[in-house]
Amino acid sequence: MAAARKHHESMIDHLPDSALAALVIIGNEILSGRTQDKNIPFLAEKLDALGIQLAQVRIVPDIESDIVEAVNSLRKRYQYVFTTGGIGPTHDDITAISVARAFGRVIERNTEAMRRLRKHYKTDELNDARARMADMPRDVKLIDNPVSAAPGFIIENVYVMAGVPEIMQAMFDSFADTLQGGKPLKTKTLQTNLREGQIAVSLGKIQAKYPNVVIGSYPHFKDGQVGVSLVLRSADDMALQRATNDVRNLLQSIKDSLVEID
Amino acid sequence: MAAARKHHESMIDHLPDSALAALVIIGNEILSGRTQDKNIPFLAEKLDALGIQLAQVRIVPDIESDIVEAVNSLRKRYQYVFTTGGIGPTHDDITAISVARAFGRVIERNTEAMRRLRKHYKTDELNDARARMADMPRDVKLIDNPVSAAPGFIIENVYVMAGVPEIMQAMFDSFADTLQGGKPLKTKTLQTNLREGQIAVSLGKIQAKYPNVVIGSYPHFKDGQVGVSLVLRSADDMALQRATNDVRNLLQSIKDSLVEID
Repeated sequence: MAAARKHHESMIDHLPDSALAALVIIGNEILSGRTQDKNIPFLAEKLDALGIQLAQVRIVPDIESDIVEAVNSLRKRYQYVFTTGGIGPTHDDITAISVARAFGRVIERNTEAMRRLRKHYKTDELNDARARMADMPRDVKLIDNPVSAAPGFIIENVYVMAGVPEIMQAMFDSFADTLQGGKPLKTKTLQTNLREGQIAVSLGKIQAKYPNVVIGSYPHFKDGQVGVSLVLRSADDMALQRATNDVRNLLQSIKDSLVEID
Repeated sequence: MAAARKHHESMIDHLPDSALAALVIIGNEILSGRTQDKNIPFLAEKLDALGIQLAQVRIVPDIESDIVEAVNSLRKRYQYVFTTGGIGPTHDDITAISVARAFGRVIERNTEAMRRLRKHYKTDELNDARARMADMPRDVKLIDNPVSAAPGFIIENVYVMAGVPEIMQAMFDSFADTLQGGKPLKTKTLQTNLREGQIAVSLGKIQAKYPNVVIGSYPHFKDGQVGVSLVLRSADDMALQRATNDVRNLLQSIKDSLVEID
């Protein structure tokens, strides 16, 4: 039917020329709303610069079957999977065992990880709980932890990192230059005081004209003022510039519209 | 092996006596890190009060196959699935058609939704793009939108809402009293300046003693100070109180520890 077809025609897909990644956030504290995630914005921005698109995020509780299911379904579909959280010393830290199960590998005390913990902690501080942070699936590559020693690990295309943002960021930076992406993704944002419905038809035409630019339209209500943010993303500089010009011209063609670009 | 068994013994599952829900956040703006999600904390807190646990969140892009896959895998597994985002008038708003596909239903212009749009917009304002907001799967129940008229909809156990927090919240409140949950979940939080490794073994024992209380341990680094937040959640008031006392006693038994409770 017409409506369905119209929807379909304007549908967009992942940008070409970029690798795809997924993130699994492991932790009840994010699901309960108690803690606001800070790792998505960091990772998304860093990956963009590497030409890798963050294509899906799953937030799962500290439950083994949920972690196994998320890791296994995502690692087959995306080039990279990152996990954050659940690698500390407490009872609710079950990421390593869950990832081992996902890969069907035994979990064992990693010798090099243990050496790093011994170096970091005094002998009487390195109790059973802390030593458990060296338990990892067999045959992994360690991820350095310059903040608190206990390393993360890489198993095939899955990168297991800490959840604390300061540690996660240091971990990511330690292996970022080994990731294989495409051309860096760039973003242009236009702000307007128009409403989505006033520009939707024309905007859809601009989207159709530039298949390698993703154009997003995000309405907001701030202090009683309505407005829309239009965000254009692409790895193709020229197309991004042209599409941005078209959107700006569209906005400026409408009476009384304000436009800001950054 | 010993390490694996130890992990397993201390593993926790979803709390009994509560229903489980999942949330699908639809929108490139959250995945790109540009927009910080505000719907998780709102929904998690409201659901807790209704005795419903938010058990998984997926953030997916504005791509039909990703939305279909998320909705279909979650609606079979959880009692309730909520979606936010992608129901506006622009080309990137593809939630309604995607949900229709997930259920194998035709999409059609909903008569009552159209009536509401006609009432809200002046005749010359109700263009094709805006009318498209009335396109929904056949046989849905509408969700009121007191902010901007365009309704969400309920299809079986899936609740399709707007992504703008002000609208999403008003929509949720309009049907909240129809949700069937369990006993309300309550939370106690203890803050300490200890490190996780100092309390991990004893904390694991307390967790094992109270299977219907979920105890989470969340380390943080703030201004060079380390600390841990211990969060206890349960629908069982008495068990929650006892477990909280045990954790407080544990913390106070350790020299120089500071403890704050709320």
